[in-house]
Amino acid sequence: MKADVGVERVTLAEISEDLGVSLSTISKVLNGRSDVSASTRERIERVLHERGYVRRGGGRSEARADLIELVLHELDEIWSMEVIGGVEEAAKEHGLSVVLTVSGDRHAPDPDWIDGVIRRRPVGVVLVFSDLAPEHRERLRSRAIPFVIVDPAGDPTPEVPSVGSANWSGGLAATRHLIELGHRRVATITGPEDMMCSLARVDGYRSAMNSAGLPIDPAWIRFGDFHVTGGRNHASELLALPADERPTAIFAGSDLQALGVMDAARAAGLAVPGDLSIVGYDDVPISRWVTPPLTTVHQPLRRMGEEAARLVIRLATEADAARGGGAAGERNASTPRMDLATSLVVRESTAPPPTTV
Amino acid sequence: MKADVGVERVTLAEISEDLGVSLSTISKVLNGRSDVSASTRERIERVLHERGYVRRGGGRSEARADLIELVLHELDEIWSMEVIGGVEEAAKEHGLSVVLTVSGDRHAPDPDWIDGVIRRRPVGVVLVFSDLAPEHRERLRSRAIPFVIVDPAGDPTPEVPSVGSANWSGGLAATRHLIELGHRRVATITGPEDMMCSLARVDGYRSAMNSAGLPIDPAWIRFGDFHVTGGRNHASELLALPADERPTAIFAGSDLQALGVMDAARAAGLAVPGDLSIVGYDDVPISRWVTPPLTTVHQPLRRMGEEAARLVIRLATEADAARGGGAAGERNASTPRMDLATSLVVRESTAPPPTTV
Repeated sequence: MKADVGVERVTLAEISEDLGVSLSTISKVLNGRSDVSASTRERIERVLHERGYVRRGGGRSEARADLIELVLHELDEIWSMEVIGGVEEAAKEHGLSVVLTVSGDRHAPDPDWIDGVIRRRPVGVVLVFSDLAPEHRERLRSRAIPFVIVDPAGDPTPEVPSVGSANWSGGLAATRHLIELGHRRVATITGPEDMMCSLARVDGYRSAMNSAGLPIDPAWIRFGDFHVTGGRNHASELLALPADERPTAIFAGSDLQALGVMDAARAAGLAVPGDLSIVGYDDVPISRWVTPPLTTVHQPLRRMGEEAARLVIRLATEADAARGGGAAGERNASTPRMDLATSLVVRESTAPPPTTV
Repeated sequence: MKADVGVERVTLAEISEDLGVSLSTISKVLNGRSDVSASTRERIERVLHERGYVRRGGGRSEARADLIELVLHELDEIWSMEVIGGVEEAAKEHGLSVVLTVSGDRHAPDPDWIDGVIRRRPVGVVLVFSDLAPEHRERLRSRAIPFVIVDPAGDPTPEVPSVGSANWSGGLAATRHLIELGHRRVATITGPEDMMCSLARVDGYRSAMNSAGLPIDPAWIRFGDFHVTGGRNHASELLALPADERPTAIFAGSDLQALGVMDAARAAGLAVPGDLSIVGYDDVPISRWVTPPLTTVHQPLRRMGEEAARLVIRLATEADAARGGGAAGERNASTPRMDLATSLVVRESTAPPPTTV
C-alpha cells in the first residue's frame, strides 16, 4: 500500500527506464491490450503495484467510457433484479450504461473479466455479494477504477467501500412485532452460520427476547440455508416439539424460508396465523402473493444498488478531480460503508397466539 | 430499402461530395460523436438511409467492441433473469460482455440509448419484448450492427430476426393433459387480448377441446392480465358459475395467474387438485414452491436468450465476412425466426376431476 497519502507519484517514464521496457508497451498493459507477452505484462504489473502507480487523467485517450461494470456471482432471481434495477437507475441518472457480468463464482469473477474491464475503462465497478482477488483490486487501483461492494450479507471486506443494510435492526423489529402480539415462545430460523447477516439477525432476535424478559430455548435457534427447504425442515422439527415447548411464532430469516415454514405448518395441520405466526425477511415480490400474504422485513435492495452506483461514481469523480488538479493522489482516510435501514412490513401471516396456549 | 441485394454500394466519398460535408464530419456521425450539429447530423443520417449505406469493416478503428447490447423494457423479476442469464451465457462463450439497458418503455429505448450504442459499436443488439423505432433500426443497419428480438409474446415484427416459443403447442399440451385426466369442463384464463401469445395459447386450448369432441362454454374463455389479480378475479367468476357449468379444471395462461386461481379456489373452499385442477404457464421458479407445486408449461426463456445472442453474433460475423471480402453487402433473403419448443411439466396441481361431478 505504498500509494498512500504523501508518497510522491511515480511516473511511467521512471518505470520505463527502470524496467528497460518501452513506454508504449507499458501503455498497452495499462490499457488491457493483449499484444504483450504474459511475462512482460506480469513484470510491469508488479512494478506498477510496488511503486503505487495511479493513472492520471489527461488526454482524450485517457477518458473513461460511459460505463459502470456490475458483477453478480449468480442471477438469483429472488433479489438480483432489485439490485440490478437500482444500479441501472443511478447509472441512467448520470448518462452511464451498465455492463453486467455473471461471475458464476462467488469469490472471483472470471480471469478474463479483469482484462475486459481494463480495456473498457469504466467509471467504476459494483460487485454484488462477491469480492475481488487482491491482484485484481490492485490492477483496478493502478488504473484509478474505483469499486464498491453491495453487501447484503453484512460482511464488509476491510478497505473496500461497501453498501449493506441493517440486519440486526431487522431481526430486532421482526421479533419485537411478535412479542407485541403476545407471543412468548418465539423461534427463529436464520441463514447459514458463516454469514454475518445470519448472525446479526439472530442477535437482533436475542436482544428483543432478552429485553422483553423472555427465555430462549436453545432448540428455538436454527441455522438454515435461506431456501424453502431449510425453512421447511427446521420448522417441521420445531413444530414436532412437545406442546409446551413448541413455538407459537417463527421469525424465518428469509421469505423463502418463510414459505417453507408455511408448508411445514400446513403439513402439521396448523393454520397461519391462527395457530402459528410467521415473519419473513427480504420482502421479495412473492411475499405479497402467497396466502396469507407474508409479514416480513423489507430489505432495501433496489436502494442498495442505487447507492452503490452513486458511491462508485462519486469516487471516480473525486479521483479524476484530484489527478486533474495535479495534486498528489490522496486517498480518503476512511473507507465508505453505508448501511441502509430495514423496515417491518406487517401483512397477514402474524396474529396474537392461540388463546389455548 | 435500397440496400437490397445487387444495389451498388455507395461510398462515404460520394456522400461527402453530394452533401458538401467533410468526410471527418460524416465519420463523426457514423461513430456517434456528439460534436456535430443536430441539423447536420440529421441531414447526414437521411442520406445514409436514402443511399442504403452500410459501413464496411476495415481498420482497427472500425473494429467492433467485445460487447452485446441487451435491452429489456422492465426488470420483470419473474422471467427477465432467465433471459438475461441465457444472453450472458452465450456472450461469455464468445468472449463478449453484456451491456444491459432497462428501457422503461416497451416501445422504444431512451433516445440517448441509440447514440450510446453507436459509440460503443457492439457486436449486436438483443431486444426483449420490445421493438425499435424505424429510424433507430436504420441507424443500426447503416453501421452494420445487427439486432434480434426475443419475443415471448409471439408477435414477431416483420423483417426483424426473432426468437420466440411455441405458444400454440403449449396451450394444446396443457389442455390435453387435463382432458386425459378425465376433465370435460375445462376453462382457460389467458393473457391480454392484444397479445399474440394469448391468442395462440387459447387456440391451442380450443384445438384440444375440439379434437376431444368437448363443447366449450363461451364463459370459459377469459382474457386476463398475466398477473395474480387477473387470475384471482376471473377464477372467482368461473367458480361462481352454476354447478353444472362450473369448470373442474382451469388452464391459467401464466404461473402468476395460476397463483391467483389457487387463491380463488381456497376462498371458495375448493381443494386443489381434489376439487379443481390448475395448469400454469412459464415454469418460473415459484411454481415449484407453491403448495401444491404447480403443473405448468415450461417456457424455455433461458434458451431463448441464448439463441438470440448466438443469432446476433452469427449475423455480425456474416456481415463482417461479406464486407471484409469486398463483396456487395447482400442481405439474407429470409428473416430468421426461431420458435423453441415448450413442454408440459406435471406436478401436483392436477388430478382427475371429483367423481361426484
